[in-house]
Amino acid sequence: MLSDYSTLWLDEELREVKYIDQTALPGELRIKSTQNLDEMFGAIINLEVRGAPAIGVFSALSMYVLAVRIGGNNLHDFVKEYIRCSDYLQSARPTAVNLFWALNIMKKELERFTLHRFGAYLLDSRLEEIELDDELRGYIGNVLHRKAMEIYDHDIEVCRRIGENGLKIIKGGDRILTHCNAGSLCAVRYGTATAPIYLANENNMNISVYCSETRPLLQGARLTAYELRENGIKTTLLCDNMISSIMAEGRIDKVIVGCDRVAANGDTANKIGTSSLAIVAKYYNIPFYVCAPTSSIDLNIRCGDKILIEKRKEYEVTEMWYKERMAPKDIDVYNPAFDITSHELITAFITENGIAEGDFTQSLRVLVGGNENE
Amino acid sequence: MLSDYSTLWLDEELREVKYIDQTALPGELRIKSTQNLDEMFGAIINLEVRGAPAIGVFSALSMYVLAVRIGGNNLHDFVKEYIRCSDYLQSARPTAVNLFWALNIMKKELERFTLHRFGAYLLDSRLEEIELDDELRGYIGNVLHRKAMEIYDHDIEVCRRIGENGLKIIKGGDRILTHCNAGSLCAVRYGTATAPIYLANENNMNISVYCSETRPLLQGARLTAYELRENGIKTTLLCDNMISSIMAEGRIDKVIVGCDRVAANGDTANKIGTSSLAIVAKYYNIPFYVCAPTSSIDLNIRCGDKILIEKRKEYEVTEMWYKERMAPKDIDVYNPAFDITSHELITAFITENGIAEGDFTQSLRVLVGGNENE
Repeated sequence: MLSDYSTLWLDEELREVKYIDQTALPGELRIKSTQNLDEMFGAIINLEVRGAPAIGVFSALSMYVLAVRIGGNNLHDFVKEYIRCSDYLQSARPTAVNLFWALNIMKKELERFTLHRFGAYLLDSRLEEIELDDELRGYIGNVLHRKAMEIYDHDIEVCRRIGENGLKIIKGGDRILTHCNAGSLCAVRYGTATAPIYLANENNMNISVYCSETRPLLQGARLTAYELRENGIKTTLLCDNMISSIMAEGRIDKVIVGCDRVAANGDTANKIGTSSLAIVAKYYNIPFYVCAPTSSIDLNIRCGDKILIEKRKEYEVTEMWYKERMAPKDIDVYNPAFDITSHELITAFITENGIAEGDFTQSLRVLVGGNENE
Repeated sequence: MLSDYSTLWLDEELREVKYIDQTALPGELRIKSTQNLDEMFGAIINLEVRGAPAIGVFSALSMYVLAVRIGGNNLHDFVKEYIRCSDYLQSARPTAVNLFWALNIMKKELERFTLHRFGAYLLDSRLEEIELDDELRGYIGNVLHRKAMEIYDHDIEVCRRIGENGLKIIKGGDRILTHCNAGSLCAVRYGTATAPIYLANENNMNISVYCSETRPLLQGARLTAYELRENGIKTTLLCDNMISSIMAEGRIDKVIVGCDRVAANGDTANKIGTSSLAIVAKYYNIPFYVCAPTSSIDLNIRCGDKILIEKRKEYEVTEMWYKERMAPKDIDVYNPAFDITSHELITAFITENGIAEGDFTQSLRVLVGGNENE
């Protein structure tokens, strides 16, 4: 059972990151483990671990595991190697802000340690004089482990609170459409868009969920349909191009999706297809909700067209999953992994700190600001 | 080369229908032939022959080929068997009106013959007294062959004229998005939506075409991308859920699609996804054109919600084409083959008799009426 697992975790000896390899679903529940930078990078870029919150947490656990194994004679060498690993992981995927967010927290924690203990910023050359003995290694390991687990626990807590806040917009009998996987597999547990869905189901609210399959990587068909069914929720799968048809039939009450990055004005980067979905939902007057941990809200970016959109390989569209190539040879392929949904199409954001409506430039800032008072 | 072939034709001895098996594309250009009712039915229902105009022409050629082989002692038996075959073929697919249209023309032609020769309607019991000898068989064969070839030639001519009329809305350098396959493979030659595209390309208008892949049966990826490339047109493939993204980037000047049935008010049944495409195009103020032979315009149907939409098997969404199943077992699947695009989203219809704009209830009737004066 999927629900017996978190999506990723540290092994009992705290030496490896373990995770569900999401490329093997729904056929196989394959658990992988790694303590190697290249494998970690590969796990992210090949979408073995995917979903904005999950790759954030995965990168934090990974940096702890890597830090324990970094060699070198002095602290300066250690820090240089730490930063090289962190920067490399950060380059795996450009759109989701959580990856940067988590790596940044971890790096700041390391710096808090060097400042507090040695009065030196991370790349201060004075750290060359500090020998990297077992005691120091132990300290650093503890500091980074604690922070990584804080990010881990924070993710579970944030998703749980998104669920509670999201429950306010769900009515008994609701038929909810979701896209891609913003489910428990995109986070440590509960997920973002699915958190209110799981809670509504626990409360016997008789909801049903429609999953768009989400070409080309089929996260809706492979992951969302899988985890919702495993959790006993009435689920129907449809192709991405069937959204207007099912809405026209009056079979959808609301749309709930996750996100990879939200700009200050509410423009939202999420899995390719989200923007079409929002436009079509608006046409049929169906409310459209985005579930977002505040760590996905990037107030440094004014609007959506400033968000970098990852372009992925042609192979994913023409060959991946298929018995044989399904397009003529050498055809040009357009394959962006994300699109931008204009804020004007979004009914509300559901975050762990509450629901943002109306003028998002205002309301999102208030919710993100809520973190500073914690 | 695809352009060496029509999509379907009669063999030289006029005993078989030959056709390109479109399920084998783009990997293989496989030609099949048949003189058997069950195979003909299978060819339509399994989409070996598909596209509204093509299945109309295919059914007409098929009825001629079948008629030559129908047994029985008297004309009444012959007619009964003819009607049974015709009704069976007609039941293969419910949405495209061209199938009914062509079968109806063929049946009326048979009745014209029985009326003219024997003064009897098709099921008149007096036909029991008329022996089905070789001479009579020869007459009927000639009559049905001539009518089937008239439908065949008419299709080529209609597509050519749609091309000429459609050329009026294309500007040099246009970047055109099309959905599914309304290409030469959907008709005998030229296609509907592609007819103006091929003509524009012949006129060196420097156009480029974007094909949405069209899940679940991938007619855009497998067929349209294939035939456009074979004909030397700059072509880019994208997934159905990428339409908003590419339009937002300002990379699409107009959308041109085909149709399976147009209601009197302009509501249009076409391949699933067309309606989303039209809604998204409207959002970005991109003109949306439907190419329609007037045989696809059904003035007997007032508006779109009266058009019967074919629901197809779950297997097409969860397994077809794949190395392994891509969705959890026993998941519910929503798989309509078509959707209805509201007339308000359509900029104009391009038919063989001209372009319909404005109040379609008025303008479509005028264009269809044009046929009555021929």
